[in-house]
Amino acid sequence: MSDAPVEAFEPPYYAVVFTTVRTQEQSGYRDTNARMEELVKDVPGYLGMDHAQNPGGLGITVAYFSDAEALTRWRTNAEHQAAQRRGRAEWYDSYTIHIAKVERSHTFKRA
Amino acid sequence: MSDAPVEAFEPPYYAVVFTTVRTQEQSGYRDTNARMEELVKDVPGYLGMDHAQNPGGLGITVAYFSDAEALTRWRTNAEHQAAQRRGRAEWYDSYTIHIAKVERSHTFKRA
Repeated sequence: MSDAPVEAFEPPYYAVVFTTVRTQEQSGYRDTNARMEELVKDVPGYLGMDHAQNPGGLGITVAYFSDAEALTRWRTNAEHQAAQRRGRAEWYDSYTIHIAKVERSHTFKRA
Repeated sequence: MSDAPVEAFEPPYYAVVFTTVRTQEQSGYRDTNARMEELVKDVPGYLGMDHAQNPGGLGITVAYFSDAEALTRWRTNAEHQAAQRRGRAEWYDSYTIHIAKVERSHTFKRA
């Protein structure tokens, strides 16, 4: 994933904000996370993703989708659901997910 | 700001996703950022904020507000607008802002 921010799309579209604090038990996390980053790209309506991580602390992932149907496809993907179960069992101390419909957006780039 | 994720509120509410890459010129950034973090707390309808920063790379701030009126109050705050102008002039190489109405949310906490 590049470190430039994903640019604004034409609203409406969806932003899924996933904020996490992880446990000490991270066996398998990295491979599964990389696999999910690949898998989501195949979801029709997936638009892109931003990710930032405080070293040893809070992580934020924001994934963008074109519409509610795309969200449903990703939420009900069997491999994704298995990863979510393992996440709750092992990798995450706490997380919050906010599913939100974007009404306005704007990108600034230095000339 | 604590490093635990902000917990889910009862929808609907707003999430403002602000993704940034900064320039080399960061004179004054830290003080202004700290001031904005204090100032936003006085906005009626402000609910909380998550922030994560990749060292030397992408930063993501997500601020939560109760309604559109709270967003307008913050967007039109004169001191905030001055900080935004200075941000575009000096501190940000690029940024995107997504203003989104949360439809569903959920918090997980390890027992």
